[in-house]
Amino acid sequence: MLYTEIPSHRPITSLLDSIELPQQLRLLESTQLEQVADELRQFIIYAAGQSGGHFGANLGVIELTVALHYCFNTPRDRLIWDVGHQAYPHKALTGRREQLVTIRAKDGLAAFPAREESEYDTFGVGHSSTAISAGLGMSLARRYQKDPCEVVAIVGDGAMTAGMAFEAMNDAVAHDADLIVVLNDNDMSISCSTGGFAKHLAAIWGKGESVNITEQGEAYLQPHPEWTYNSRLHSAATDAADNLFKAIGFDYFGPFDGHDVVQLTQVFEAVKKRKGPRLVHVYTKKGKGFAPAEADQIKYHAISKLNAPASSTTAPKYSDVFGQWLCDEAAQDERLIAITPAMCEGSGMVKFAQDFPQRYFDVAIAEQHAVTLAAGMACEGLKPVVAIYSTFLQRGYDQLIHDVALQNLDVTFGIDRAGLVGEDGPTHAGAYDYAYMRTIPNMVIMAPKDENECRQMLHTAYLYPGPTAVRYPRGNGLGVSIQSELQAMNIGEAEVLASFNEAAGPSISILAFGSRVQPAFEAAQALATQGLAVRIVNMRYVKPLDEALLDRLADSTALFVTVEEHAVMAGAGSAVNEYLAKAGIVKPTLNLGLADEFLHQASHGQMLQLAGLDAEGIEKSVQRAWSKLA
Amino acid sequence: MLYTEIPSHRPITSLLDSIELPQQLRLLESTQLEQVADELRQFIIYAAGQSGGHFGANLGVIELTVALHYCFNTPRDRLIWDVGHQAYPHKALTGRREQLVTIRAKDGLAAFPAREESEYDTFGVGHSSTAISAGLGMSLARRYQKDPCEVVAIVGDGAMTAGMAFEAMNDAVAHDADLIVVLNDNDMSISCSTGGFAKHLAAIWGKGESVNITEQGEAYLQPHPEWTYNSRLHSAATDAADNLFKAIGFDYFGPFDGHDVVQLTQVFEAVKKRKGPRLVHVYTKKGKGFAPAEADQIKYHAISKLNAPASSTTAPKYSDVFGQWLCDEAAQDERLIAITPAMCEGSGMVKFAQDFPQRYFDVAIAEQHAVTLAAGMACEGLKPVVAIYSTFLQRGYDQLIHDVALQNLDVTFGIDRAGLVGEDGPTHAGAYDYAYMRTIPNMVIMAPKDENECRQMLHTAYLYPGPTAVRYPRGNGLGVSIQSELQAMNIGEAEVLASFNEAAGPSISILAFGSRVQPAFEAAQALATQGLAVRIVNMRYVKPLDEALLDRLADSTALFVTVEEHAVMAGAGSAVNEYLAKAGIVKPTLNLGLADEFLHQASHGQMLQLAGLDAEGIEKSVQRAWSKLA
Repeated sequence: MLYTEIPSHRPITSLLDSIELPQQLRLLESTQLEQVADELRQFIIYAAGQSGGHFGANLGVIELTVALHYCFNTPRDRLIWDVGHQAYPHKALTGRREQLVTIRAKDGLAAFPAREESEYDTFGVGHSSTAISAGLGMSLARRYQKDPCEVVAIVGDGAMTAGMAFEAMNDAVAHDADLIVVLNDNDMSISCSTGGFAKHLAAIWGKGESVNITEQGEAYLQPHPEWTYNSRLHSAATDAADNLFKAIGFDYFGPFDGHDVVQLTQVFEAVKKRKGPRLVHVYTKKGKGFAPAEADQIKYHAISKLNAPASSTTAPKYSDVFGQWLCDEAAQDERLIAITPAMCEGSGMVKFAQDFPQRYFDVAIAEQHAVTLAAGMACEGLKPVVAIYSTFLQRGYDQLIHDVALQNLDVTFGIDRAGLVGEDGPTHAGAYDYAYMRTIPNMVIMAPKDENECRQMLHTAYLYPGPTAVRYPRGNGLGVSIQSELQAMNIGEAEVLASFNEAAGPSISILAFGSRVQPAFEAAQALATQGLAVRIVNMRYVKPLDEALLDRLADSTALFVTVEEHAVMAGAGSAVNEYLAKAGIVKPTLNLGLADEFLHQASHGQMLQLAGLDAEGIEKSVQRAWSKLA
Repeated sequence: MLYTEIPSHRPITSLLDSIELPQQLRLLESTQLEQVADELRQFIIYAAGQSGGHFGANLGVIELTVALHYCFNTPRDRLIWDVGHQAYPHKALTGRREQLVTIRAKDGLAAFPAREESEYDTFGVGHSSTAISAGLGMSLARRYQKDPCEVVAIVGDGAMTAGMAFEAMNDAVAHDADLIVVLNDNDMSISCSTGGFAKHLAAIWGKGESVNITEQGEAYLQPHPEWTYNSRLHSAATDAADNLFKAIGFDYFGPFDGHDVVQLTQVFEAVKKRKGPRLVHVYTKKGKGFAPAEADQIKYHAISKLNAPASSTTAPKYSDVFGQWLCDEAAQDERLIAITPAMCEGSGMVKFAQDFPQRYFDVAIAEQHAVTLAAGMACEGLKPVVAIYSTFLQRGYDQLIHDVALQNLDVTFGIDRAGLVGEDGPTHAGAYDYAYMRTIPNMVIMAPKDENECRQMLHTAYLYPGPTAVRYPRGNGLGVSIQSELQAMNIGEAEVLASFNEAAGPSISILAFGSRVQPAFEAAQALATQGLAVRIVNMRYVKPLDEALLDRLADSTALFVTVEEHAVMAGAGSAVNEYLAKAGIVKPTLNLGLADEFLHQASHGQMLQLAGLDAEGIEKSVQRAWSKLA
């Protein structure tokens, strides 16, 4: 069935309702599975409309999920969903159907599979391309324990471009591990697949490998679904004489129609009879069964809640501020090149990609490569800008040290989604970037207080002839006016925003970084109304710190307070502590930031409140510290 | 010629001496190149004997290096040597021949190519598998600048298993970049190649692709050198129907004899006439031309200086302490599994690999995969130990956060080569691991003061049911006696080693971490002889810190001093600062550690002295801080 609307009421799903756990699914006749899939699809469309969140990928794996739980003895057999944004149907079939409407909300189901949530969630995911490594670990462990089980890693074609997937496949062959990789090929990562791998998948399309379903007899399931694979680059077909997966040593089967649930069960039953590393290639369609999502797969990668309140802000997203700056700077400087690891839309680069196609490089999900590619370009005198989420730059950390900073190359990093990220939960938090970057010599690290400062800092970073990072949060700016003229700031110069009640004596000096400047300012105002002497500083730079300012403030400061949307451990406040120690400035200091724990999902605002990093939380923490001093 | 001895006197190399720079090489007839190669080989054997350092890989690329500089217009054309430990012949042909005897020494040539050293060193390397990304960046930059040049990345077969190389090849095809990858296939990484990729190379061996050297005519250079590829797994040959490089979209040529210098020049001239991503597969032999190195490639990966003074210590290497502990623990606990990313010998695992082959996993150069593989095994109740160098764990940083710590999985990391690493220089320094690990929730981080504590800490870490790291330095222990019985320590408990001159008043409390405990102890003794009240603490844990001890010491401490072989920024001392601030302990604090700069190579001892982290340096720094206080 092809649906066209997201229903506001729960659909009637009588057969699905009889399935609480996969063992009930496995009692059905295979002829009933199409109905299960249809009802599950209706339910997912409904539930995702209630919760908001990932959409297209979930609709694409309905039949695959049903077939996997039907054929494999879960949870004893291990299913590992790579990335995990396609795990809603899996959650719905493993005891969590009615909770699905709470997904991504505070105290609701996690956005991704999570071990603590269910024994069916064998491995926590969120970042891409981990499933084959994890699955191989499980398979080898169970072999060693002489208690083997089936292990199935379900990986999208986009995630296959990350080198980690290749490393794991290479190693699986080394050990002749009993492991099934299901390549869920929808010709998309989040944007569109890119590179030699995508071309190769297109080439495979013309050939395919059947599966012998009777083992010794001659009954074969034939690959080649009838639809055309029209988005692929068919020109590659003649060059790629054979199959990459077979070349690396996997047994290869497919491609099969990923929406033919009965055939899928036959494929999996046949493949189960074999041993060693096996790859089953299925073709699925993102958004399958929901007409608007089939028509616009990028838009329907994720959706908002039905009837979500309209956003109360008209301020632009930081991503869009980045994207606009990128276009403006590029118009002024031909040396600017922009690189994204498969995050064109998320990073606000759609306009740049259209306006400057020669200077736009989507390198696929390949963060390590993205960073070193930029280094190589910088060696030739270009000025590359790498747009990357804080949490994903963790994948390129060694390259940042070894290839960029060590050679002091002129690469600018636009670090998005820094700090807490709300509903995506702990896998996507950008809570460590100050720490992992500030230890690296030659780095300059900035954090803007608002969207205008973000724009000017990006310009400042761009002009600086060495490695720089500007880190900004997920979501919208403050609504300040944005100066279109690009104006470089002084590197390492903080800004004293206000000094209240100076006459009241030695001051509380609040040193705030990035997104926490505004709430810290509000906290300072509130403290000022209580008669306290309070100074509020927009620190702007995590590295280099404005040491001269700290020197100037020292004598008139009774309590230093640092505030950041980042782990306290090793963060920006810690940098302040180091300087104060070095300078012999011996003063009480309060470091506010994220505690040493992984935070569960909630809205960004809720998380900040829980962390005590909203204006009220900051105010209370400062009051408490001040009263202890008195 | 096959040589059998490392000469102590410089050989006579009359033709080679006429070549200062590659332009002189290019004036020769190709018939003279064999003599150049022979003389260069003699010279390299001599020079490496003088300097010590990498050996086998350099002898393996003599002919390749001559052919590349002969055929390509260096430095305008870009050669990028992946890893770079095979760049001695390259340095010898690019104006640095007589300096080669200084390689790896203080103020000598760098161990690896370095941009600051020569315009012929187009990209600084050290870690593996970066060259294709960097080369692609250069190629795309030059295309964009409408000033194209040839770009050649020379990559070993071992380095090809790292996912980053795959990411880069995928992207090169996406852009149809003009890039030549020379696959220098010696069937080894540092140990032996492993996995599907190695099997695939073996399979290719039976087929091969010739190069048309006349473009339109019919003169072909045929692949297939005559020797047998006997170390390969020929069983794979029938399965891998075609070629992985072609599958990904490269034009493939080879394999060719990498020691036939004249044929190599013909191959490169022919390949230069083509465009797009091209891969030239050459077979070379590590240690080629030096009989003992051909016979034992692992032993001759690197050599010591001729007539190097015998080591003055009989203390075991930390790597060996790790290896022995691993065997002992494994004998007691069947759940122990050990994982190395291609560093069996370096990490001291040879005996373990022999004694426990079922539990030993060399995953090839694949740090990302190594970490997540361990996570997968831990999910099944095993207790994996990952042996990894500090600098290489940077490659698995995201996996440490996302796959291990976030799920609080029971994985033990034995982190070797932590701190300064001497002659290998800044690319291999392990100066950031405290910082990048301590921000991660759930991590326990230990640093032993000596080899016995290392052993007991590894045991302690192993017993702890969550993610732990024990970080220890390169080189030898202190010579203390090692207790064979494994005895768990209390997590988070520091050790007060001595308290001198307590009666003299409030004390200097020196909090030392890991390798710096012993010199800090000596510094404390020296300060004590000057009448100062000094306390010296072996902190043992970077996380969790022994906060109770800091509380107890606070009142009687006038100056806290932290000492570590790690960047001051965000390091262990910074963790102390954070706790003191949190606890309201307001005291002068001196953080000693590595300054915010990349340190050039020297011996480990020289580097520590320069960094002020030997006993004398620590003493002086404390004196200075103390006198300022007075």
